Amino acid sequence: MVIHGGNRREFFEKYGREPLDFSVNVNPLGMSPRARAAAMGALDRAGEYPDRKYLRLRLAVGEHFGIPAEYIVPGNGASDLIFRAAALMRGKRVLLTAPTFSEYEAALCAFGCRILYHRLEPEKDFSLTETVLDHIVPGLAGFFLCNPNNPTGRTADPCLLRKILERCRECGTILWVDECFNGFLDDPAAYSLIGCLSDCRNLIILQAPTKLYALAGLRLGYAFCSEESLRKRLWAMGQSWPVSAVAQEAGIAALEDEEYLERSLPLVRGQRAYLRDGLKELSFQTVEGEANYLLFYTDIPDFADRLGERGILIRCCDSYRGLEKGYYRIAVRLPQENERLLEEMKEIHRMRLRKAEF
Amino acid sequence: MVIHGGNRREFFEKYGREPLDFSVNVNPLGMSPRARAAAMGALDRAGEYPDRKYLRLRLAVGEHFGIPAEYIVPGNGASDLIFRAAALMRGKRVLLTAPTFSEYEAALCAFGCRILYHRLEPEKDFSLTETVLDHIVPGLAGFFLCNPNNPTGRTADPCLLRKILERCRECGTILWVDECFNGFLDDPAAYSLIGCLSDCRNLIILQAPTKLYALAGLRLGYAFCSEESLRKRLWAMGQSWPVSAVAQEAGIAALEDEEYLERSLPLVRGQRAYLRDGLKELSFQTVEGEANYLLFYTDIPDFADRLGERGILIRCCDSYRGLEKGYYRIAVRLPQENERLLEEMKEIHRMRLRKAEF
Repeated sequence: MVIHGGNRREFFEKYGREPLDFSVNVNPLGMSPRARAAAMGALDRAGEYPDRKYLRLRLAVGEHFGIPAEYIVPGNGASDLIFRAAALMRGKRVLLTAPTFSEYEAALCAFGCRILYHRLEPEKDFSLTETVLDHIVPGLAGFFLCNPNNPTGRTADPCLLRKILERCRECGTILWVDECFNGFLDDPAAYSLIGCLSDCRNLIILQAPTKLYALAGLRLGYAFCSEESLRKRLWAMGQSWPVSAVAQEAGIAALEDEEYLERSLPLVRGQRAYLRDGLKELSFQTVEGEANYLLFYTDIPDFADRLGERGILIRCCDSYRGLEKGYYRIAVRLPQENERLLEEMKEIHRMRLRKAEF
Repeated sequence: MVIHGGNRREFFEKYGREPLDFSVNVNPLGMSPRARAAAMGALDRAGEYPDRKYLRLRLAVGEHFGIPAEYIVPGNGASDLIFRAAALMRGKRVLLTAPTFSEYEAALCAFGCRILYHRLEPEKDFSLTETVLDHIVPGLAGFFLCNPNNPTGRTADPCLLRKILERCRECGTILWVDECFNGFLDDPAAYSLIGCLSDCRNLIILQAPTKLYALAGLRLGYAFCSEESLRKRLWAMGQSWPVSAVAQEAGIAALEDEEYLERSLPLVRGQRAYLRDGLKELSFQTVEGEANYLLFYTDIPDFADRLGERGILIRCCDSYRGLEKGYYRIAVRLPQENERLLEEMKEIHRMRLRKAEF
């Protein structure tokens, strides 16, 4: 049985205890306290329908990201907008990288799209190269690009990104850039295409506060787009009240929680380096991830099971197209938790060496 | 400017104050206290993703409605499932009554369906008659039937319902019965098709606790279906985490809040009769609604505006296909609020008579 990210229930059924969960990529500090307080307050009016235009939310998000409120289409998590994107391109040809976030493929399959894959090579540390441009041709309806990519944590080179955008424009291709993990990068602005929105009518950026502010269980996401006709279609592809009153208020409040980010980001960056060093010490092939998670490879058999027996849940990545058995993803968590993870890994590694000696 | 149901923000912009809102059909007691407490508790774990199989929720809902948990597909409100339904029937012919809940048409339009309308006649108090059977023919992919209907509050005769179901079966038509307001009826079981689920593989029932337990702002709904292949397609048409952790816990707890229902239902039933009598006294054409809202007609010009000036928001129904200008819907609220509504209506009515005298 493969245990997917965040599936604590299945873990409990298999190992009889709650896991220390490294399979889910959310901020290790837990929900932003401001967001939590706002969510609590929102329960007082959660008996009523939210404003179906989500005006207050869109004004706050627009101000935060420096874009007009009308550019913003809110959704029930970025995943909701991924499904609307697929619905909008139904039956057409769409490009994905392999590996990438599996929700794109699920959505495109549901809507009968023809999916083309651009394979990212382990030898190049899964980085995006100029060869991707060859796949962007007339007749390609869309390209979903996750930046930083999930599960690799790799960013696309900003110059290449602009070439991709230009090539998409020439070919009539909509470029969907998923920037949900952008906020965890060392220099988020350098890798975001938000500054290109006004000039590029074929660009749609997906964003969500669910990872950066740990609101995953509340479900909230956005699509940003300057082209009115595209936005109208994205709105029309979904129901009238996609975002709950609770998510709306939490989302607004999170954006004001600068103190929380000031605590989170140095922690995540420092611990990411700590974990990466630890993985390398174990001689695991470790991808140079830049977000709040790391992808690595080990040939130790049933590695996730060995950790599961020790109460730790990590993400098996062989369900990702383009990744073979032996790839695993871990989230960056709190220092003591990361320390424990590395210790357990070392122990499993030691036992294996000992076995090999006999 | 037409102000849609629940749009308090637009009301505030137009009239400069918060409305007494009769435009939204939720339980007037406000959120079930048990659901509210559970929602509050769920915030402690809302940083994490919910279980993507929603097993606890489905077990609780299944037990409550007396159906197997596997029959249940959870969604982000019934509206989420209406859009998935439309996606599933994309491009095909689908039957609606006119009037009915407008979300069906919005969803079917988004997915390029060809919509056929069965007109409900005001002369017959908008009740469904056997003539609807003539519209159910081979090649019809689906029929959305809202029972009790929104905005009329009328139920379909149980015998006719079974004939419709049988005719749909013969024609290969999926019957989608929206029972979201069923719980407000005097005898819910008599009008529900839940008992037919196991035997009818072409039947899908839509349900939601958002009205009965006043959880509208949390977004939660379900589709019930015994046919595995249909359910699989419904699951596949939506994202992996449609229901928030908060909505899941609130939904489970609401089902246990019998005390709340015991207070709500006699209140709603009594106040519905009180409002209906009041509307008739004013000589407004009043539909014999059986749920927690009433549809009526008056030829007093700009009636909603007159009430708006008095701080009351009602639902203008001329945006419903099949209803002309002059139709309005009001929710059943608390006794004092209903009293105030009728008084303001009487006052507007009196002023009009006075004007007519000159």
